Amino acid sequence: MFLSKLDSLNNALKLINDNQKVCDIEEISIYDAHKRVLAEDIIAFHDSPPFDKSAMDGYALIAEDTFGSSQSNPREFKIIDAIGAGDFSSKKVNNNEAIVIATGAPIPDGANAVLMKEYTTDERDDLTIYSQVTPGENISPKSEDIKKGDLILSKNTFIRYQELGLIASAGYDKVKVFKKPRVKVIITGNELIEPTKDEIDKAKIINSNQFTIKSMIEESGAICEISHAGDSFDEVKKAILDASENYDVIMTTGGTAISKGDVVLDVVDDVGDILFHGVAIRPGKPIGAGIVNNKMIFTLSGQPVAAMSQFDIFARKYLFEMQGRSFDFNIVKRTSLLKIPSQLGRTDFIRAFSDDDYAKHVLNRGSGIIRSMVEANSYIIIDENDEGYQKDDLVDVVFFNSLVW
Amino acid sequence: MFLSKLDSLNNALKLINDNQKVCDIEEISIYDAHKRVLAEDIIAFHDSPPFDKSAMDGYALIAEDTFGSSQSNPREFKIIDAIGAGDFSSKKVNNNEAIVIATGAPIPDGANAVLMKEYTTDERDDLTIYSQVTPGENISPKSEDIKKGDLILSKNTFIRYQELGLIASAGYDKVKVFKKPRVKVIITGNELIEPTKDEIDKAKIINSNQFTIKSMIEESGAICEISHAGDSFDEVKKAILDASENYDVIMTTGGTAISKGDVVLDVVDDVGDILFHGVAIRPGKPIGAGIVNNKMIFTLSGQPVAAMSQFDIFARKYLFEMQGRSFDFNIVKRTSLLKIPSQLGRTDFIRAFSDDDYAKHVLNRGSGIIRSMVEANSYIIIDENDEGYQKDDLVDVVFFNSLVW
Repeated sequence: MFLSKLDSLNNALKLINDNQKVCDIEEISIYDAHKRVLAEDIIAFHDSPPFDKSAMDGYALIAEDTFGSSQSNPREFKIIDAIGAGDFSSKKVNNNEAIVIATGAPIPDGANAVLMKEYTTDERDDLTIYSQVTPGENISPKSEDIKKGDLILSKNTFIRYQELGLIASAGYDKVKVFKKPRVKVIITGNELIEPTKDEIDKAKIINSNQFTIKSMIEESGAICEISHAGDSFDEVKKAILDASENYDVIMTTGGTAISKGDVVLDVVDDVGDILFHGVAIRPGKPIGAGIVNNKMIFTLSGQPVAAMSQFDIFARKYLFEMQGRSFDFNIVKRTSLLKIPSQLGRTDFIRAFSDDDYAKHVLNRGSGIIRSMVEANSYIIIDENDEGYQKDDLVDVVFFNSLVW
Repeated sequence: MFLSKLDSLNNALKLINDNQKVCDIEEISIYDAHKRVLAEDIIAFHDSPPFDKSAMDGYALIAEDTFGSSQSNPREFKIIDAIGAGDFSSKKVNNNEAIVIATGAPIPDGANAVLMKEYTTDERDDLTIYSQVTPGENISPKSEDIKKGDLILSKNTFIRYQELGLIASAGYDKVKVFKKPRVKVIITGNELIEPTKDEIDKAKIINSNQFTIKSMIEESGAICEISHAGDSFDEVKKAILDASENYDVIMTTGGTAISKGDVVLDVVDDVGDILFHGVAIRPGKPIGAGIVNNKMIFTLSGQPVAAMSQFDIFARKYLFEMQGRSFDFNIVKRTSLLKIPSQLGRTDFIRAFSDDDYAKHVLNRGSGIIRSMVEANSYIIIDENDEGYQKDDLVDVVFFNSLVW
């Protein structure tokens, strides 16, 4: 039995995309909606501001009455009322009259500007002004931010803090969003143990994937639960079937068993359908994916770096798009500080430290060397049709911080 | 009373920095340590891997015995044992012997390479190989990732998923991190109401700051609680004093009261010390900061966009550095697609939509227009010594996604 033909990256990604699912919709409080994805269009229930609003503490008056006023040419007004925030005045401002007004209060009838308090002096009802204002000055006009009835945000918009503020201003106390996918991670490998300071038994290895992969799932907006299974076909089969009934997505790490081929993929083949197994990438070649009980399963490597890269390349987009958020690598061009050899027919995801100008790849980068991910903030991606790059060539870079939810 | 002299941005930032505090340290489970900041150096308790480890499913053997083997020139070996993951073999490999080995299992004595299963056939104890390997091939050498006793991560490192994996591999089941600061936000403004679809009473305005500022605090790694206070001196005083006893940081929004100057700053002056009030920036000029009961208080504007910008300019760094994480704007150069006027003596933070090459500022950007933040992904920063830029000039840009925790 020789090395089976590897799928191309594009073909593998297409197979996943063909099986993309989208989560159900739920209605949640606006208080919980930060970093969720809209599952409805937001149509404004109100104008915002709902009235012409003072942008300053000062005096509402008629701008034309202030023309020509200055420090050396003060002018006198009569104060006829005062409006605090949350209040309004039923009085109308006539020529050479002024109403005291707080930031956020509605402009009274007749007035068309607010003169800041700092440019005035007052004594009881007598106001002296030392500056002029233009019509509309220091007024936030009604509906300048939001117009009642307008579509202000579309379905599938990711809710950052500013979108959240806009949705609240539009009158929504609840909002429809896509549910978070629930992901079950099954860690396989008889050699794996929990972190411990004590001496480690011979042939045992501390399991780091449960920490890295869980964190990556959570920073993709999803909910993660970890479980463990031994390397036997029956144990893995039971774990995968259970997960397929109770979770939206399944991921496994490791699980190659001696003399039996890859036990995880054998199980997927037995209880579901394999989409692909083995892709022409580095690191992460042994990646597999399949469908069990109508749920997507990603079979990640046991090697820590391979597993992280496989997650970035295959699983991250799937989790984003389950939540209604489109996702593609944001590829930028940087100058490579080093020569990078690569192999035709294979897509390389090379850990690198990059800034706004340059990319420098990490030299020591075996697929088990977590330090290589710690030293990196980006991938240099080398297409399967490229044989690598010379020093000073422009290369394709994806920053890790462009991948987060 | 005329407009008091504004502080320069640099002076205001220095005053905050002079009063920077750092949170206490707590020891937490490694399971909860993602996105926290190390408060201790991480010294490895173990080598990782702890032994020479097979990187493949295959056969451990002596590389030199395989030299010259090929499809047309197969060679015969005797299989003497099998090692599953988590197990080890007490047998030694001699010339022309092989031991079946699983990925992750320890290389047996005598062997110096692993030949992948795919390049072999076997029948009972007889192995035929069709390829050669070099010494060390498919072996992850002991301690290639981590060397026992080495300093692998320093205090003040932010724990991404890859750092978390490294810490676990080094044997830590608990880790010392900086506590999360607890922030009390006091929303002031008699005009403010909760989001509602129903018709809004005259002079009332939906409060969006509680949503935006809370989200910004949480995405800075901190814990936020919101409360409300009316615009009266006594109410605000009580709220600020209570907060100063029970929280690490206080923020207020709005709260300018008619005829009394700024009620929030009056309270800070009464119960603590004002560091500054009024800074030469746009938006966000009315920003204040002070110390009450030895706690930092930021007095943000009621205007939604001003409050968000003030948070980014003043509060975000303070919250990061309380948690032991250094923070400075990551300023990059982009070509402005539009002319940008600015005023000497004032630092402008102009909302813009930028990509890897260009920056285009949002045109409609009153400090109450939340939509201007929704349309933006970055600030163009114009220094107080610059009078603005022409189209095609290089400008300083900070991306919003470079500000997050």
